[in-house]
Amino acid sequence: MEFKISREFLSQIEQLIKENKEQELHDLLHEIHYADIAEIMEELDDYGAIYIFNTLDSEKTSEILLELDEEVRVKILRKLTPKEIAEELDELSTDDAADIIAELPQERKEQVISELEDVEHAKDIVDLLRYDEDSAGGLMGKELVKVNENWNVLTCVKEMRIQAENVSRVHSIYVVDDENRLKGRLSLKDLLTTSTKTPISEVYIPKVDSVKVDTKDVEVARIMQKYDLEAIPVVDELGRLVGRITIDDIIDVIKEEADKDYQLAAGISQDVEADDSILELTKARLPWLVLALLGGFIAVKVSGQFEGAMEEYGVLFFFTPLIAAMAGNVGVQSSAIIVQGLANNTLGGTIWQRLYKEMRLSLFNGLILSVILLLGSHFLLGVEYIIGITVAIALISVIVIASLIGTFVPITLNKYGIDPALATGPFITTSNDIFGILIYFSIAKAILGF
Amino acid sequence: MEFKISREFLSQIEQLIKENKEQELHDLLHEIHYADIAEIMEELDDYGAIYIFNTLDSEKTSEILLELDEEVRVKILRKLTPKEIAEELDELSTDDAADIIAELPQERKEQVISELEDVEHAKDIVDLLRYDEDSAGGLMGKELVKVNENWNVLTCVKEMRIQAENVSRVHSIYVVDDENRLKGRLSLKDLLTTSTKTPISEVYIPKVDSVKVDTKDVEVARIMQKYDLEAIPVVDELGRLVGRITIDDIIDVIKEEADKDYQLAAGISQDVEADDSILELTKARLPWLVLALLGGFIAVKVSGQFEGAMEEYGVLFFFTPLIAAMAGNVGVQSSAIIVQGLANNTLGGTIWQRLYKEMRLSLFNGLILSVILLLGSHFLLGVEYIIGITVAIALISVIVIASLIGTFVPITLNKYGIDPALATGPFITTSNDIFGILIYFSIAKAILGF
Repeated sequence: MEFKISREFLSQIEQLIKENKEQELHDLLHEIHYADIAEIMEELDDYGAIYIFNTLDSEKTSEILLELDEEVRVKILRKLTPKEIAEELDELSTDDAADIIAELPQERKEQVISELEDVEHAKDIVDLLRYDEDSAGGLMGKELVKVNENWNVLTCVKEMRIQAENVSRVHSIYVVDDENRLKGRLSLKDLLTTSTKTPISEVYIPKVDSVKVDTKDVEVARIMQKYDLEAIPVVDELGRLVGRITIDDIIDVIKEEADKDYQLAAGISQDVEADDSILELTKARLPWLVLALLGGFIAVKVSGQFEGAMEEYGVLFFFTPLIAAMAGNVGVQSSAIIVQGLANNTLGGTIWQRLYKEMRLSLFNGLILSVILLLGSHFLLGVEYIIGITVAIALISVIVIASLIGTFVPITLNKYGIDPALATGPFITTSNDIFGILIYFSIAKAILGF
Repeated sequence: MEFKISREFLSQIEQLIKENKEQELHDLLHEIHYADIAEIMEELDDYGAIYIFNTLDSEKTSEILLELDEEVRVKILRKLTPKEIAEELDELSTDDAADIIAELPQERKEQVISELEDVEHAKDIVDLLRYDEDSAGGLMGKELVKVNENWNVLTCVKEMRIQAENVSRVHSIYVVDDENRLKGRLSLKDLLTTSTKTPISEVYIPKVDSVKVDTKDVEVARIMQKYDLEAIPVVDELGRLVGRITIDDIIDVIKEEADKDYQLAAGISQDVEADDSILELTKARLPWLVLALLGGFIAVKVSGQFEGAMEEYGVLFFFTPLIAAMAGNVGVQSSAIIVQGLANNTLGGTIWQRLYKEMRLSLFNGLILSVILLLGSHFLLGVEYIIGITVAIALISVIVIASLIGTFVPITLNKYGIDPALATGPFITTSNDIFGILIYFSIAKAILGF
C-alpha cells in the first residue's frame, strides 16, 4: 500500500529535527520507502532536508538522491565532499550515476570521478558521460550479462554467475564474438537443458533487436514499445555491444516527450513546473506572449486597412474576435492531429492526400458552423441578413484555410527535421488570427463593396 | 534492427495475394515480427489483410490480432467463427484475451467463451471481464506465481515449476495464506539458499506493495512509477490475491493519459487519429467549434454594447483580436501548468497561494508586454498616445484576470472530481475572449468616456 505524507507526520519530523533527535528520526524513517523520503525532503527546508539525508544509511541515501527533484539534489550535493558523493555513486547503477555526475560543475565532476572506489564502475561511468543525453548512449547502462560464442555451456554458466552479481535484474543474456560484436542472445531454458560441453555458438538465437549508440531516445522508445521489449542491447558503429537500455528508462522518455508536446501546444517553451520561480516561469512563458503580441500588431494593421467599412458596416468589427477564435481553434485541432500522428508514426499517405482530406473535413464542418452562425446572427444577435450571409461565407473560407495551414505547417516542419509540435499553440493561433481577419475583411469588402 | 515497410515490399505482397501464392507469402512473412505484419496488414485492403491472416501460423496470428488497430481487428474478427476466435484467444494471456473479447458484441462474446478449450483460462478471462477497464482489475492479468505460506521450500519449488509454465515472465513470487490473502513475496535467492524443509512462513518478505481491484489505472501507473516496480499484485476487498499488473500495460496507460490531455488542450474530444473517417473526426472536433462559436456570439454582443465608441474611437475595435488573443494565450499557459502539476502530483500549497503567485507572475509579464505595446502602438501602428495608454492599461488587467481564471478553473474542477484538462484549450480561450473584451472596453470607456 502506498504511503501518504500527512501534515502531522511532517510536523513530527520537523519537531524531531528541531530537537536534534537523530536516532528517533532514523527509526521513524527506517521503514519508509526512499521515494517517499525524497518527497518528504522536498517538503522540508534546506536545513531539514540535509539533516535527514545525514541520518540515513548510505544504500538508502543513494536511491533518495536519484528520486529528488534536481533543484533539491543540487543543494544536497553542494553540502557533500567529492568523496561522499563518490560513495553515493558507488551504490548506483552506471546510468544513474552518470546522470547525477553530468549535473555537477566540471571541476567537481573530475574530483568525484577520481574518488570512485570501484575502478571498473568508474570506467563505465566515464564512458557513459561521452554520449548525448537524448541518444541511446545517454540512456543505456553498462550492467548486462554477456557470453562469448566460443565458450561452452559450462564456462558460460560460471561467467554468468560472476557477471550477474552486478546486475539487479537479468533481462537477457547476450552473445558476442571475440571482438565483442553482438551476435545474438541466449535463452536461459536452452542453456539449462543443453549438455555442459556444447559450444554456445550451437545454442544461441542469432536474432536480436538492437539499437545504435546514436539512435534518438524517442526512436528507442518507439522500437521497444512496438516490439514489446523489456530491454534492448546497444551497439556502437562497429556492431560491438556497449550497453543495454531497460524499459523503466523508456517510461521517462515517453513522459518527457508527451509533456514537451503538451507544453508547446500550451505556449510554454521549456520544462517548467508550477513550483518554479517567477523568473523561470516568465522565461518559459513570455517569449510566446511577445510573439502573440507582435502577431496582434499585424492584426491591428490588417483591420486598419478596412477602416472604410466602419461608417456603414461597423457591425463587421464586432465579429473579428469570433473569426479569429474560430481560425485559431480549427488550426490547433488540425495541427494537433498531425503532430500526434507523426509522434506515433501512424501518418500514412502523401501531404496532398492529407490536405485534400482536411479540405473536405473542414468544408463539412464549416458548412454546419455557417448555418449555426446564420441562424444565430439573425435570431440571437439581430444582425441584418446581408451581414449574416457575409460573415457566414467568410467563416467557411477562414475555417478551410485555417485547417489547411494547420495541416501543412507541422508536416513541412517535420520534413525539414524541425519538431512539428512547435507548430501547435501560439504559433498557429497567431498566424491564423492574422490570415483569418485578412480573409474575413477581404470577402466582406468583395460582397458589401465598402 | 528494425524492419521498415518499403513501398516495393508492399507491392510484392499485393502481387502475391493477387496471384494467390499462399506458400510464397508464408515464406516471405515467416521471418517478420508480428508487430510489423500488423502494420503491413493495416496498409492493405480488407481482402489482403484477411488473406495474409489466413496464411500465417496461429501463434503469430494471435499476437498480430493484439497489435492491430481496433478498426482492422474488428474486420478480421467478423470473418472468423467463434471457434476460430477462441483458438486465437487460447494462445494469449488472460488480460489480452479479455481485452479482445470485450470488443465483441454480447452474443458473440458468449459463443467465443463457450468455445475456449482451456477451462481455467476461460474462467480467468470471464472473471477479468467483470472489471471496469479503467481500473486495476481491468488492467491486470491472472498469470502469476504464488505459494502458500504453510508450504515448505520443497513443495514450493515443485509448485512454482508447474505454475511458471503459464507465465511468460516471472516478475515476483507472491505468498498467500490458506484464504488466498496476500501476505508478502519471496526472493528467489532466499528460496534457493534455504534448506528444503524450511516453511515458507519463515523465509518470505512480509512487505509487498499492492493495489486494490478498483484502484484507478492512472493511480496504479503513478504508484508503479514512483516505486520503480516492474509488476504489482492486485487484491480484492478482502485482501485476496486476484491478479498482477506488469509495467508494459502501464506504458499504455501513461501514453493514453498524455494523449488525452493533449487532445483536450487542442480541442479534440475523443481519441481520434488522422486516418479516421471524416465523420469520426467531425464528431471529435465539431462540438468544441460549436462551443467556440457560441462564445463568439457573446463576444459580438459584448462588443455591440460599446458601439458608442465607434465614431470617435473606432481604432479601439482594431485591437479586439489582439486583446482576445492575449487573454486566450495567457489563460492556456496558466491552466496547462496547473493541469500538469495535478497530473504529476507536484502541486503543493493552497489555491490562494497559487492565485497569489499567478497574480505576481502575470503582473510582471503584463507590465513588460504593456511597455512593448505602448512602444509598438506609437512607432509601428502610429496610434494616438491616449489610445496606446488605454490599450496598455487594459492589456495588463486582461492578462492578470485571464491568468487567474486559468489557474482557478482547473484547480476547482479537480476539487470536484472533474478532469482538469477539460479547462485547457477551447474552453479557457473562449471564456477568456469574452472576459477579455468586456474588461478591455470597460476600461477604455472609463478612461476615454464615450
